[in-house]
Amino acid sequence: MITFGPMESVYSYQQLWDFTFGLLKQIGCPEAEAELATKVLLNADLRGIDSHGIARLSGYIRLWEAKRINERPNVQIVHETHSTAVVDGDGGLGLVVAPKAMEVAISKAQKCGTGWVSVRNSNHFGIAGYHAMMALEFDMIGIAMTNASPLVAPTFSVERLLGTNPIAVAIPALHQPPFVADFATTTAANGKLEILQRKNQDAPEGWIQKKDGATSTNPHELKDGGALIPLGSDREHGSHKGFCLGAWVDIFSAVLSGANYGPWVPPFVSFLAPPADPVGLGIGHFFGAMRVDAFRPAREFKEHMDNWINRFRNAETIRGQEKVIIPGDPEREMEHDRMTNGIPLNGKVVEDLKALAARFNTTF
Amino acid sequence: MITFGPMESVYSYQQLWDFTFGLLKQIGCPEAEAELATKVLLNADLRGIDSHGIARLSGYIRLWEAKRINERPNVQIVHETHSTAVVDGDGGLGLVVAPKAMEVAISKAQKCGTGWVSVRNSNHFGIAGYHAMMALEFDMIGIAMTNASPLVAPTFSVERLLGTNPIAVAIPALHQPPFVADFATTTAANGKLEILQRKNQDAPEGWIQKKDGATSTNPHELKDGGALIPLGSDREHGSHKGFCLGAWVDIFSAVLSGANYGPWVPPFVSFLAPPADPVGLGIGHFFGAMRVDAFRPAREFKEHMDNWINRFRNAETIRGQEKVIIPGDPEREMEHDRMTNGIPLNGKVVEDLKALAARFNTTF
Repeated sequence: MITFGPMESVYSYQQLWDFTFGLLKQIGCPEAEAELATKVLLNADLRGIDSHGIARLSGYIRLWEAKRINERPNVQIVHETHSTAVVDGDGGLGLVVAPKAMEVAISKAQKCGTGWVSVRNSNHFGIAGYHAMMALEFDMIGIAMTNASPLVAPTFSVERLLGTNPIAVAIPALHQPPFVADFATTTAANGKLEILQRKNQDAPEGWIQKKDGATSTNPHELKDGGALIPLGSDREHGSHKGFCLGAWVDIFSAVLSGANYGPWVPPFVSFLAPPADPVGLGIGHFFGAMRVDAFRPAREFKEHMDNWINRFRNAETIRGQEKVIIPGDPEREMEHDRMTNGIPLNGKVVEDLKALAARFNTTF
Repeated sequence: MITFGPMESVYSYQQLWDFTFGLLKQIGCPEAEAELATKVLLNADLRGIDSHGIARLSGYIRLWEAKRINERPNVQIVHETHSTAVVDGDGGLGLVVAPKAMEVAISKAQKCGTGWVSVRNSNHFGIAGYHAMMALEFDMIGIAMTNASPLVAPTFSVERLLGTNPIAVAIPALHQPPFVADFATTTAANGKLEILQRKNQDAPEGWIQKKDGATSTNPHELKDGGALIPLGSDREHGSHKGFCLGAWVDIFSAVLSGANYGPWVPPFVSFLAPPADPVGLGIGHFFGAMRVDAFRPAREFKEHMDNWINRFRNAETIRGQEKVIIPGDPEREMEHDRMTNGIPLNGKVVEDLKALAARFNTTF
């Protein structure tokens, strides 16, 4: 569990819900969409991915106020085949566009085994895992990817050309909880840098490079033109593979859909202008849903997933390590804990939310 | 380019073709399948992935002689929907089963936009990139994955539970050559260890662990119960993400299809017996084909791919580096070079092939 030291305060899920939902309605978000956006956003806080949750609320609202989010988007399919679609998010909140697009993927999978949806003209969509996990209740495997503001330098580059471009894969099991991988395709997610910044600690070698490409341990390096590094840290340890992964996400999310890709992805922060020469519309996502029984009977598949999970979780470990961690375990345990015991928020996040509240004549 | 020092000999592609094709026919492989297997196997040599090419021929033949490869397999679809299929390889050569399964994926994509095929009861399939690239001529994106003999320890495990489980993604462009990523989901592929073994050199830290999980630089460590490490090298640098990738490949290839997964995957080497308690049939693969025009007009997509590739290739580089390497560039250049100038083979590989030739009353 990530802790923030003495400055943190604990809020109940309901408190964060009421505040977020209320504020979204107040700025003009229709009720149903405000509800969905709140659910998606706060799922990050519940699952312990604090950088992607309510800490970003004021960022979304600034984008909204800057008219860079469409208040009443007409989210629609602009092209489709039996198993694919391109969804145009019409500049709406990614938190709303993404689950709607994932619903399209699920509906296609119901009819022809799998569904694949590339999305253009969207915005940041919260945590990828939320959308991938939507498939689970239908006995489907879910996949979610998104591109993001360019903060990552490909191997050998000094330029920041990719986002942290996460991939999530959610796979159902029977008695075991599902396998849920959700990870940035960089060595470390940007949220990990933010934690180091708050704690005034150095980053390990291999996470960050300076603007000339030299290695750095300064978590503030990105403010001076530095970059995050693809998963692998350096060429000798496979950073070209991390680059492949980030590129894959970028192309599926944006070149397939007609969104902006690479260095053209518009920034999340409202104080930076979008590139003057866009190559597409908004940012892009990619979603997949695969019916398990399009391959073999669902129960049989899920029994083998239980066997897979048990075998890996109970592997003999390196001395000092209790268990092999199955992807999704820590986040699920965190969700249970925080739903019961509340969600700790960093002091700076609380300050930011209090200021936001004051600006909208409400309280936090 | 990988060189092997004074012991290497250079052979023309035609020489290697004649030898491989002749030998496969001699052991009883039907002509059409021998031709396909030769093409797939030698594509690894052409593209510079020497560990997966003719160096493995005697291994395949030993498996054949041990009756662990079915001479006359009935490769067939055992379950399907509009966009999916499970193919049973009937214990045939993976080099033949894999391209046949990829053809099923392509044919499904022609009809409903995408095709997804999970394969059981197969064997090692050569290089993943070959199969993914089959999609390119149809203006499709190709994906290929396979599981493999367990040599990799998940983060915190001392047990070897996963193969190097590669992922290949091939994406067409217009005037630019295609984007072709093909990489093991470990920090380093096993082939890289073999090169170090031949050269009597140490491995970098972060590639290998000892049988107790401690770090090692000994490229022979796997013979003493050591393991390869997932992409990321250690937890601090994201090895849990590499574990997610390897697990993803394993589940899509084998739990979806009904092949063996995790530590149950049968070994490639004939002197090791397959596990006594299999959880499925043979090893597993997973293939995908996505029609580009199932998302947007193919020409438009490919123009944007050209733009993507140009922007990344010509990014400003770290001093001393000429260009950012686009996935697929080095292998394509190698293929051109080796088709023209011949294929260098390591002395030990030549010795092995000469012994094989003698055993079959032919010459190499």
